[in-house]
Amino acid sequence: MFILNVSGHRTLFVGVRMPRQSHRHHKAHGSRHRKRDRRAATQQSEGTETTTSSHDTPSQRVQFILGTEEDAEHVAHELFTELDEICVKDGKDAEWKETARWLKFEEDVEDGGERWSKPYVATLSLHSLFELRSCIINGSVLLDMHADCIEEIADMVLDHQEASHELDDSVRVKVREALLKRHHHQNEKKKNLIPIVRSIAEGSRKQSESHLTGGFHRLYHMQTWQISSINRKCFVLNQIYNFHFFTSGYRISVKSYEREVDLHFMKKIPEGAEASNVLVGELDFLERPIVAFVRLSPAVLLSGLTEVPIPTRFLFILLGPDGKAQQYHEIGRSMATIMTDEIFHDVAYKAKDRSDLLAGIDEFLDQVTVLPPGEWDPSIRIEPPKNVPSQEKRKMPGVPNGTVCPVEEELHAEHHGPELQRTGRLCGGLILDIKRKAPYYLSDFKDGLSLQCVASFLFLYCACMSPVITFGGLLGEATEGRISAIESLLGASMTGVAYSLFAGQPLTILGSTGPVLVFEKILFKFCKDYELSYLSLRTCIGLWTAFLCLVLVATDASSLVCYITRFTEEAFAALICLIFIYEALEKLCHLGEIYPFNTHSDLDKLTLTYCRCAEPGDPSNKTLELWSERNITASDVPWANLTVKECISLQGSFVGTACGHHGPYTPDVLFWSVILFFSTFFMSAFLKQFKTSRYFPTKVRSMISDFAVFLTIVIMVLLDYVIGIPSQKLKVPSKFQPTRDDRGWLINPIGPNPWWTVLAASIPALLCTILIFMDQQITAVIINRKEHKLLKGCGYHLDLLMVGLMLAVCSIMGLPWFVAATVLSISHVNSLKLESESSAPGEQPRFLGIREQRLTGLVIFLLMGCSVFMTGALQYIPMPVLYGVFLYMGVSSLKGIQFFDRLKLFGMPAKHQPDFIYLRHVPLRKVHLFTVTQLTCLVLLWVIKTSPAAIIFPMMVLALVFVRKLLDLCFSKRELSYLDDLMPEWKKKNLDDASKKLEEVESRPLVAKKARPDPVPAHL
Amino acid sequence: MFILNVSGHRTLFVGVRMPRQSHRHHKAHGSRHRKRDRRAATQQSEGTETTTSSHDTPSQRVQFILGTEEDAEHVAHELFTELDEICVKDGKDAEWKETARWLKFEEDVEDGGERWSKPYVATLSLHSLFELRSCIINGSVLLDMHADCIEEIADMVLDHQEASHELDDSVRVKVREALLKRHHHQNEKKKNLIPIVRSIAEGSRKQSESHLTGGFHRLYHMQTWQISSINRKCFVLNQIYNFHFFTSGYRISVKSYEREVDLHFMKKIPEGAEASNVLVGELDFLERPIVAFVRLSPAVLLSGLTEVPIPTRFLFILLGPDGKAQQYHEIGRSMATIMTDEIFHDVAYKAKDRSDLLAGIDEFLDQVTVLPPGEWDPSIRIEPPKNVPSQEKRKMPGVPNGTVCPVEEELHAEHHGPELQRTGRLCGGLILDIKRKAPYYLSDFKDGLSLQCVASFLFLYCACMSPVITFGGLLGEATEGRISAIESLLGASMTGVAYSLFAGQPLTILGSTGPVLVFEKILFKFCKDYELSYLSLRTCIGLWTAFLCLVLVATDASSLVCYITRFTEEAFAALICLIFIYEALEKLCHLGEIYPFNTHSDLDKLTLTYCRCAEPGDPSNKTLELWSERNITASDVPWANLTVKECISLQGSFVGTACGHHGPYTPDVLFWSVILFFSTFFMSAFLKQFKTSRYFPTKVRSMISDFAVFLTIVIMVLLDYVIGIPSQKLKVPSKFQPTRDDRGWLINPIGPNPWWTVLAASIPALLCTILIFMDQQITAVIINRKEHKLLKGCGYHLDLLMVGLMLAVCSIMGLPWFVAATVLSISHVNSLKLESESSAPGEQPRFLGIREQRLTGLVIFLLMGCSVFMTGALQYIPMPVLYGVFLYMGVSSLKGIQFFDRLKLFGMPAKHQPDFIYLRHVPLRKVHLFTVTQLTCLVLLWVIKTSPAAIIFPMMVLALVFVRKLLDLCFSKRELSYLDDLMPEWKKKNLDDASKKLEEVESRPLVAKKARPDPVPAHL
Repeated sequence: MFILNVSGHRTLFVGVRMPRQSHRHHKAHGSRHRKRDRRAATQQSEGTETTTSSHDTPSQRVQFILGTEEDAEHVAHELFTELDEICVKDGKDAEWKETARWLKFEEDVEDGGERWSKPYVATLSLHSLFELRSCIINGSVLLDMHADCIEEIADMVLDHQEASHELDDSVRVKVREALLKRHHHQNEKKKNLIPIVRSIAEGSRKQSESHLTGGFHRLYHMQTWQISSINRKCFVLNQIYNFHFFTSGYRISVKSYEREVDLHFMKKIPEGAEASNVLVGELDFLERPIVAFVRLSPAVLLSGLTEVPIPTRFLFILLGPDGKAQQYHEIGRSMATIMTDEIFHDVAYKAKDRSDLLAGIDEFLDQVTVLPPGEWDPSIRIEPPKNVPSQEKRKMPGVPNGTVCPVEEELHAEHHGPELQRTGRLCGGLILDIKRKAPYYLSDFKDGLSLQCVASFLFLYCACMSPVITFGGLLGEATEGRISAIESLLGASMTGVAYSLFAGQPLTILGSTGPVLVFEKILFKFCKDYELSYLSLRTCIGLWTAFLCLVLVATDASSLVCYITRFTEEAFAALICLIFIYEALEKLCHLGEIYPFNTHSDLDKLTLTYCRCAEPGDPSNKTLELWSERNITASDVPWANLTVKECISLQGSFVGTACGHHGPYTPDVLFWSVILFFSTFFMSAFLKQFKTSRYFPTKVRSMISDFAVFLTIVIMVLLDYVIGIPSQKLKVPSKFQPTRDDRGWLINPIGPNPWWTVLAASIPALLCTILIFMDQQITAVIINRKEHKLLKGCGYHLDLLMVGLMLAVCSIMGLPWFVAATVLSISHVNSLKLESESSAPGEQPRFLGIREQRLTGLVIFLLMGCSVFMTGALQYIPMPVLYGVFLYMGVSSLKGIQFFDRLKLFGMPAKHQPDFIYLRHVPLRKVHLFTVTQLTCLVLLWVIKTSPAAIIFPMMVLALVFVRKLLDLCFSKRELSYLDDLMPEWKKKNLDDASKKLEEVESRPLVAKKARPDPVPAHL
Repeated sequence: MFILNVSGHRTLFVGVRMPRQSHRHHKAHGSRHRKRDRRAATQQSEGTETTTSSHDTPSQRVQFILGTEEDAEHVAHELFTELDEICVKDGKDAEWKETARWLKFEEDVEDGGERWSKPYVATLSLHSLFELRSCIINGSVLLDMHADCIEEIADMVLDHQEASHELDDSVRVKVREALLKRHHHQNEKKKNLIPIVRSIAEGSRKQSESHLTGGFHRLYHMQTWQISSINRKCFVLNQIYNFHFFTSGYRISVKSYEREVDLHFMKKIPEGAEASNVLVGELDFLERPIVAFVRLSPAVLLSGLTEVPIPTRFLFILLGPDGKAQQYHEIGRSMATIMTDEIFHDVAYKAKDRSDLLAGIDEFLDQVTVLPPGEWDPSIRIEPPKNVPSQEKRKMPGVPNGTVCPVEEELHAEHHGPELQRTGRLCGGLILDIKRKAPYYLSDFKDGLSLQCVASFLFLYCACMSPVITFGGLLGEATEGRISAIESLLGASMTGVAYSLFAGQPLTILGSTGPVLVFEKILFKFCKDYELSYLSLRTCIGLWTAFLCLVLVATDASSLVCYITRFTEEAFAALICLIFIYEALEKLCHLGEIYPFNTHSDLDKLTLTYCRCAEPGDPSNKTLELWSERNITASDVPWANLTVKECISLQGSFVGTACGHHGPYTPDVLFWSVILFFSTFFMSAFLKQFKTSRYFPTKVRSMISDFAVFLTIVIMVLLDYVIGIPSQKLKVPSKFQPTRDDRGWLINPIGPNPWWTVLAASIPALLCTILIFMDQQITAVIINRKEHKLLKGCGYHLDLLMVGLMLAVCSIMGLPWFVAATVLSISHVNSLKLESESSAPGEQPRFLGIREQRLTGLVIFLLMGCSVFMTGALQYIPMPVLYGVFLYMGVSSLKGIQFFDRLKLFGMPAKHQPDFIYLRHVPLRKVHLFTVTQLTCLVLLWVIKTSPAAIIFPMMVLALVFVRKLLDLCFSKRELSYLDDLMPEWKKKNLDDASKKLEEVESRPLVAKKARPDPVPAHL
């Protein structure tokens, strides 16, 4: 009735600190004689009455224990803890059964499921923790014992028990026998020994054991050596699985114990880990419980004891009388859980005596979180949290319990690194950029050698091709073919390759943007009106722009980027994403115009549907003009035989029952395109999130997820091919030569234009520079955000240099200009996300960062250059599929934007709103005000972007920064720090209220940390 | 330095039970003198040294306290707890601020968010719980005090403080002042008093207060009465918000305190609840903390103190010196949480002295769940669990902590109720059924008056129409129009109405099933071959079947249903669901045949596409026969002018470029149908689960969810109408008359047939009876499952009676036969699910049951009968939309089937498998074996169902029961009890091993309860 006896000692040291004693630990280090004092003091107090004698709190005592210098013997290792249980009734054959294990979280052996449970947070009952405490107080505590096998340990424990209580001799033998029983582990097959063999083994074991008293190298003559009894003999195998030895002439080969060590689990056990074995159970012949806490020194590989072949350091034994199995189980769990606690684990390694262990338990108790019984079902298995707070603060003196120390203040720290500090020297920033990036250059290529990069490249190659070609096509229309698809392809490829090789942030993907197109259109019209050479003037402007970019680089202008806060970024990124989505949908709708369908037709009537081209009944003046221009008379034309294109180009009219307004009905194409479009979108999204599904092994899942978009495209192309509807396809130029014959690959900047145009070109170049600077740098800021955990640093100056240089090259060659494309870049980054492989079972994989490398970008743009030779394959890709990919990219890029989270709040009743950190600290109406401001800006930008004034768009983006500045008037700094980043001036200007801020920062994490871990990576 | 002083008393009573003292509580009731003993004993022990004197454990003591008889004064009420905090620095103007509240779970006032947090499980630190314990030990405990206003209470507390410690007079005044400060509640607008008014109020208050010493009805002459000062005067308002009183000639109207009571929250507070106010804070002028626990008797409405106007019963005051606000806050939270604990709350009401309270705290501590610091982040707010275990066991003596008492054994209890007990009397079961259902008859109609029923009816009306009409059409084809769509409609309507009105389980929806169709087909062919009258023979068979059904009813044959275990049910239900899904997809594919499309066409060429009917080039003999039958010669026919239907019926051939094999290409229809089909499916599913989204208020969401399918149908019909593609539409007969003129609404059972056919008809009738019995009863079993929590009972006998009777009626009238349709019935039940409105914030809504009523079924079938007159509207419903609804019904019915969960396990690695209860207790390979067996049965059933042998299908379903019986050989009872239900024999046969079973049941819930609450309602 030991457990009950224990309750006689009801005094418990509770962790409330005593003041003015804390100076102690400052001197703790190395003060040998003090330690002796303490030891003496605690030894006095060890007895039946266990009031702790020293006057400090458990916390201080633990800090003191941990502060003692390390000797080789007491170095803390990682621990693997295993709980084995036995149940002996009437001396029947029994064995120890592994019922739970701990690396960090608890895993149970399911009752009858023959399986491990999912790792979960060990929910203990305070009751059993207190019982455990009593066990330590009253049981044997054997520290730094030398033993080589389980027999020795059993004898030690029993000797110690005998010393304190009288232990019947017969009971002693039975207990010893129980302790030496075979250990059955979950990963072993249950029936690896046929019953008969086992019973023989058992018999011989009993015989031989009556002569044995344990000890090393004592070999007795025995007739049969059974595999099962091997486990109980003293052989430190030290991970050797096949060994031979002779005993009385018999040669016995022990083959891997017949046990399969779970190799998958073995991998999760850290190097050098030691085992702590918790053995509990009920023995019906016991009258009082036997409790022992054993620390071995050195750790010993006790073969067969632990599931995995690692040396055992700790043993906790609790054997008690019948009928309390559940209680013993709970105490065992408590012991095991407390052993996995970071701090107690260290205490256990360093403890000098029982009272140190008690202090460790008390300190642990003082730190636990408590769930009230009426509000929680203790049987619920709690999933391990995403992050566990660091336990270091428990080692630090002076941090009282109950206060949370400021850990996550970086959350609101300055969001731009030192890269954006103005150097004040010419090209200072650039030089620093190069210095920063150079050491990583080789690794930029090595890191790219992974399957994920292949997936990323395939996805983005498909995604980049279409806009480049579309842009080329549009430019071709606008400039009467002076710059068209092939020039666009060549320009993109060249710029991309150069950028990928030398830029500061090679994760950025370059592309063509709307404002550039608008600019080119206006320029072309201007040139045509004033009879100037478009290509030459364009070259001049391009060269000027390049020059201005270089000036910006030289003067560290990119450091102004730090004024771009999340407000600006998100408004810009949201706009670009929306444009992406809008354009994808618009293009689909446009298909509806190209491919009209016949409604309200009567299916039952048999069709004689036709649609013919015919001479327009009443040709307009324009039409006549067109004809005369082409030297055509209406009667010459074989109207009825014309194809659709010819008919349209000659402005003929369509007549017939199968004709819409602009041409013949094209059956099926539109609806098929719609099906392709949405299938692509949903399939990409589905496959992308396949990573989180439960099916298939992790590797397969993450591969499917990585290749999601490419897989989708392949499947859709095949489907389209099989169905055979003539949907619109991607049209890649098939020959490598300028679209028009009257231009070559090099353009003269002056050409036929007057000389002053060279100078005048500097004025539009200024506008162009702003355009390129804003587009480039905002995207770069988004890519370089802290959330992405980039390790190789950024290089705004170097980026701009590369863009500027390639701008010059493109201008001279008469190719379009390319800058960073926001959505493509975000998609690129998203496709390269790295997650940690979980270490201990139950630990959540963490987002580690991005696979930073130059290879994907390089290959994408190299292959883009070669696309001309791949027309054969590329022509099968239906455009609706690509539009679907755009929709997917737009939508998935939106996901991380906080602005949209805030927008969604409008539709939610307050009580259903998610637990965003800013909602805790900023009143809802203020959050709404902020959102509305941002929305207004977005709408204005949208209007400007789509209006003919699109060219001033970059200026308006600049204006966002000022709008943000105005917000300082309506919002407090504290509010803005939650909704946005702080603007840099504050740091400089308000040095005086630094103290106030510090106070804020200190008070903030207290609540800030209460936020539920955000499932979305917070922000782009 | 009170908190620190407390730590001097380090003795804590820890909840380990003492044996052989437990007899005490048995005699506790009414033993007055014993109670006095106890009181004396504890009073002795009260002092500075607080070792608990009585020898029982806290748990026993609490049980003893709760066992004392109730007097009116100490009746426990529900509690609302509010935590208010104050912070006074340098005597500046301060106020109490509400920072958290508890009904069951904690809700915090967010730091700056001006909002309530989501309710969460209060995670406390053990540290602060111990500090709270010290507070109770050392503070004032004032029980059953009489006070009428906060002033009185403040004086009482301070008097008591003075008695124990010396309290400086000036400090006393300041503390009193602090205690009387205004209370600010979260729901109040912050600026309801302009600052100037407030300062005046403040001034006058101070003036007047110097004369006041508190007390009731003492009115002083004052110049101005300020609203804010009203709060501090003694007026027990007793929920009267508008009252008038005179003081020195001024008439003052106090209007609702200018406070808006949060009415929405007020609704959640239970009737008769009392408040417990926890007031903590730091006062910089204090040297030592002031702690008081006050229980008022009677409870008093202290106006302004509590957020809601309910009387205050408890007050906990903790005011301490500067710098420990966080600690005080935590202690306050601990106090509040412990007050919401069911058991402590009762103890607090009944406590006689300090030691009772301490026992309550200790008992609470003994019951808490502990989360280790290294495995959990205490700042995570834990969502309230779905279920909280009952705390009743804490009140029961003899249930030791750490063992889980068997609560949920019903889980595996017999799954059939007493309804299926064989009575042994003629019609015994039927009579019992009627007796059971009769009392509910009126409520069956009253309960139907709800919006949810309207939604259910609209959904199922649409869902039922299509199969009935399709079935009628097919039957019409098979029987050459003898029984067709209109007969089907009429039959369904009549049977449905009668069944809804009088059946035992009106939630079942009747429909037409495949086997019946096969049977009719065979019968018709037989009749044609032997030149018998089909309709007459059919009537005979029907009457026989009806008779046999009545015999089954009279003999209580339905009680055999208890042999249908989950194994059979699920195999059957899964099959029907799969058939539903398969048929929906098959019908879609069939559309592909009806509406072929033209592939690989060149869009650029202008079309002169035609498709004409032509005389078949080489008419086959059959064709010629057909022509001669219709008196047609090929040359007479105006081939080129025929419509598609005419051409097909005359077996003409189609020629032209726009022709497929079987007719002209029909552009767009197929793809449009595909779009409609999948849109319907996804939209239904999306709208259905809208209930769980965050947007819109709860009411709107649940309405959208209820009307999901109907809304989808309406939207799709509109969309189809707008687009105008001639997709296939629902065709409802528009005239109410038999399809063929040669039959009426009454059929003669003999008619032209020989007399012996009447007798011979009994043989097929036998088969028919099995068919109808199995279909009907399995569906009924599925509907009546325990999981649905039906309250009005079932009525298998009555069900069968109704089906039998209506079978007779339908036979005589020459209408098809109808039995329970599985998928439709499941959909019906699913559409009528009831959930509880959450009571305390944070409590999860529970599944309450099904809205059991007869109205939906009645209206569905009534309207079905009237459909003939609604052809105008119904003809706009496209068939692909209805197919989409079928797909949705099939898929959503599959969801709850455990068989599919198990099937999915094949694709999952063991560690990703969900935490199903049976996986814990049954080895995976056994689970797989069970699944494979079931799958094999399913495949066999499928093959039979689709083969020509479909007619023996019901027999095969019967065979499932025997397969299940065979499984007893491979599986242990324990395993089967987890995977399936137990078969009834066991109970009878194995009475001897009842003890063993009991053991099982007892050991089971221990682990069974560990299962995470299943998100899906477990099973159909």
